[in-house]
Amino acid sequence: MAARRPSPPPASPPPPRPRSTTTTRTTSSASAAPAAAQRLVAMAGSGKFFVGGNWKCNGTKESISKLVSDLNAATLESDVDVVVAPPFIYIDQVKSSLTDRIEVSAQNTWIGKGGAFTGEISAEQLVDIGCQWVILGHSERRHVIGEDDEFIGKKAAYALSQNLKVMACIGELLEEREAGKTFDVCFKQMKAFADNITDWTNVVIAYEPVWAIGTGKVASPEQAQEVHAAVRDWLKTNVSADVASTVRIIYGGSVNAANCAELAKKEDIDGFLVGGASLKGPDFATICNSVTSKKVTA
Amino acid sequence: MAARRPSPPPASPPPPRPRSTTTTRTTSSASAAPAAAQRLVAMAGSGKFFVGGNWKCNGTKESISKLVSDLNAATLESDVDVVVAPPFIYIDQVKSSLTDRIEVSAQNTWIGKGGAFTGEISAEQLVDIGCQWVILGHSERRHVIGEDDEFIGKKAAYALSQNLKVMACIGELLEEREAGKTFDVCFKQMKAFADNITDWTNVVIAYEPVWAIGTGKVASPEQAQEVHAAVRDWLKTNVSADVASTVRIIYGGSVNAANCAELAKKEDIDGFLVGGASLKGPDFATICNSVTSKKVTA
Repeated sequence: MAARRPSPPPASPPPPRPRSTTTTRTTSSASAAPAAAQRLVAMAGSGKFFVGGNWKCNGTKESISKLVSDLNAATLESDVDVVVAPPFIYIDQVKSSLTDRIEVSAQNTWIGKGGAFTGEISAEQLVDIGCQWVILGHSERRHVIGEDDEFIGKKAAYALSQNLKVMACIGELLEEREAGKTFDVCFKQMKAFADNITDWTNVVIAYEPVWAIGTGKVASPEQAQEVHAAVRDWLKTNVSADVASTVRIIYGGSVNAANCAELAKKEDIDGFLVGGASLKGPDFATICNSVTSKKVTA
Repeated sequence: MAARRPSPPPASPPPPRPRSTTTTRTTSSASAAPAAAQRLVAMAGSGKFFVGGNWKCNGTKESISKLVSDLNAATLESDVDVVVAPPFIYIDQVKSSLTDRIEVSAQNTWIGKGGAFTGEISAEQLVDIGCQWVILGHSERRHVIGEDDEFIGKKAAYALSQNLKVMACIGELLEEREAGKTFDVCFKQMKAFADNITDWTNVVIAYEPVWAIGTGKVASPEQAQEVHAAVRDWLKTNVSADVASTVRIIYGGSVNAANCAELAKKEDIDGFLVGGASLKGPDFATICNSVTSKKVTA
């Protein structure tokens, strides 16, 4: 397969390949938007739309209590999986106050069973406290704390072995994109996950170009679509067509209430991993509900 | 000052220098042992005896609830500061159920203000949830996670700036002791702390020879005393006589209910940082109460 070269930064990339799989979804849940019949326009994957909120190292007991009440009051489309990831020390508070409609994730976990690892939290402990998910390989763990691909891949294997679902993060640095290495970097990171994952049912891939995280510089929908499609192709080639078609590939990096609808229209963007905007309940709900921009009235 | 060479491992080291400072303490608190007048035999420092419990990456909601009830029921001498350090995700549970007699610590913290640091917990957040202490520079963070002296020193500065008290850990690897480098290693680690600490009031130094942690190979009382005395001398030379005489220097590394009394008799051992034994309430209480072995009936 000829090596695919990602488009250069900001310049407009080649148009994404045409792909049309439509699934009819109707929105129906106690707290869902009015139930006009709608048809999902384009979603390459067959997985449900997925939005995760990564609160990172933000929040206090008080601000989190307010955020939880906003989330509990939000009206969410029924056909979107919603997960939030509080800092470790607030998970107990969130688990005991947040609606079950929204699942809870940790932002990291230890690589194996617990024990003499001062400062670490094991996957068993996260399950014990009621976490369903964990974010692994976030670029801040990679480039600030120094976790490498192999370490992250092993974490994924162990988390999944303890029935913790994984948001597996990948993404290139600006200099890597500018050097035309986006796909090389993402595929290398994907390989480290794939070497350690046998069952992808509980895995969501989060493509987060590092240059778009917390910078206000969001990838264009075309740029994100291009990488998502390439990652899906990579899965098809290196894992299986089935996994490629079912795994959710979500985008992260300066996603907000204003830009989510355009991004969501892209067929290989199955949702979002949201940073700063996930700390504002109404904005986060808007991003969750951007699944509607993938739908047209039947 | 001639470079001090630590005694070789296990072989019996030279006898510790004579030092006699006695302070009369009587045990008197609602839950303290019978109050026969007793006199503190030998404590080089003037600080209160201090025992910390580092639960590391151990425990579940259930086991921790049992441990907390054991600790709540324990009879503790009045003249010992007692602190326990649960894993991050259980701190909320422990804070809301543990007696105020025992303070709560985290096992690690981030190096600065919170923000886009996925997986990390800031000092502000630890204070927000009710932590009074944090363990920094534990050998597992140094040698398993890879934190270096400078990183740890900066963490200490920031934690103290947010009114979080610090258990500052130092200690040599086996190969370093066998190469006669115990003091070099400990003094280098101390310097990284001292470069970042201006007020030592809320600092406790924990000497934990790495070769004694979780190995069952406890340092002999003489070996520990020798390093504690050397560290106190280092403080006298490099910080101040006042800090040297007031700061608590505690020992950690395979401390248990059986060996704590002998260790506690040593004048420069001001208490303990306890690993595995801190997960058993009665044993931990025994170690807390080993302050009595520093006392004789007046």
